[in-house]
Amino acid sequence: MIRELVPEDREAIEEALTECGAFSEEEIRVALELFDAGAPGGYTLFGAEIEGRVLGYVCLAQASLTQSSWYLYWICVHPAAQGKGVGRALQAKSEEFVRSQGCRRLVLETSGRPDYCKARRFYENAGYERVGLIPDFYRPGDDCAIYSKVIE
Amino acid sequence: MIRELVPEDREAIEEALTECGAFSEEEIRVALELFDAGAPGGYTLFGAEIEGRVLGYVCLAQASLTQSSWYLYWICVHPAAQGKGVGRALQAKSEEFVRSQGCRRLVLETSGRPDYCKARRFYENAGYERVGLIPDFYRPGDDCAIYSKVIE
Repeated sequence: MIRELVPEDREAIEEALTECGAFSEEEIRVALELFDAGAPGGYTLFGAEIEGRVLGYVCLAQASLTQSSWYLYWICVHPAAQGKGVGRALQAKSEEFVRSQGCRRLVLETSGRPDYCKARRFYENAGYERVGLIPDFYRPGDDCAIYSKVIE
Repeated sequence: MIRELVPEDREAIEEALTECGAFSEEEIRVALELFDAGAPGGYTLFGAEIEGRVLGYVCLAQASLTQSSWYLYWICVHPAAQGKGVGRALQAKSEEFVRSQGCRRLVLETSGRPDYCKARRFYENAGYERVGLIPDFYRPGDDCAIYSKVIE
């Protein structure tokens, strides 16, 4: 079940971020800052609840100064729920939501590192197109790959 | 003279943003939000003062989750001071500052619209390289061009 997140979901989100193993301590801190900022801060958060546990979530926000573009800031699935289409469901919910707001473009940034290959393939398979690459953006040897998808 | 901006410079900044004619009302509102957020919000602001008047400014901030990349968010020169190298001086000061922080990359986003051709040429002449293009990002027909420069 995909539903909007509430402040009480914070612990589950922190666990998913930690357990999924993809994020550094600093990344988890920033992800939780966005969670805490929530709707008043302009962020939309959806969680995937499975048997009463939130095991994944997505965080998005409209891109400032744009008419119809949104940023997908964070998507994370707990290892206990990976490989079950939870990421896909969160992705689909995000697109449906953006469309419901009269908007039609999702943009996201991810690492160009070899260990992010799976993440990039996930987006590519979901119809995202690479529209930019900033060399060494995160740190030397760690590029920023920018992806974008038009939601029809 | 290039110096750090202080809250008392707000009126001059608003005038420069309005008079330069390049920004919409919403863009000016967002630019002033960043000015108001200032250093506590993580923004670094330098102004160009000419004969006691601040006639241009630049706003930059370190890119979240990066080791050494900065975003150049805003650069604006009052029409009364255009064509006198003020933009270049603000640009150079930004690069010097980023370097002084032990960082080495500046990234900026600008419009791909024909009327932003002069702005894009300004960056290209300053050594920025286009690293991405998000079609229709701002609105239909208004792409986002992403530029990046390594500061040696």
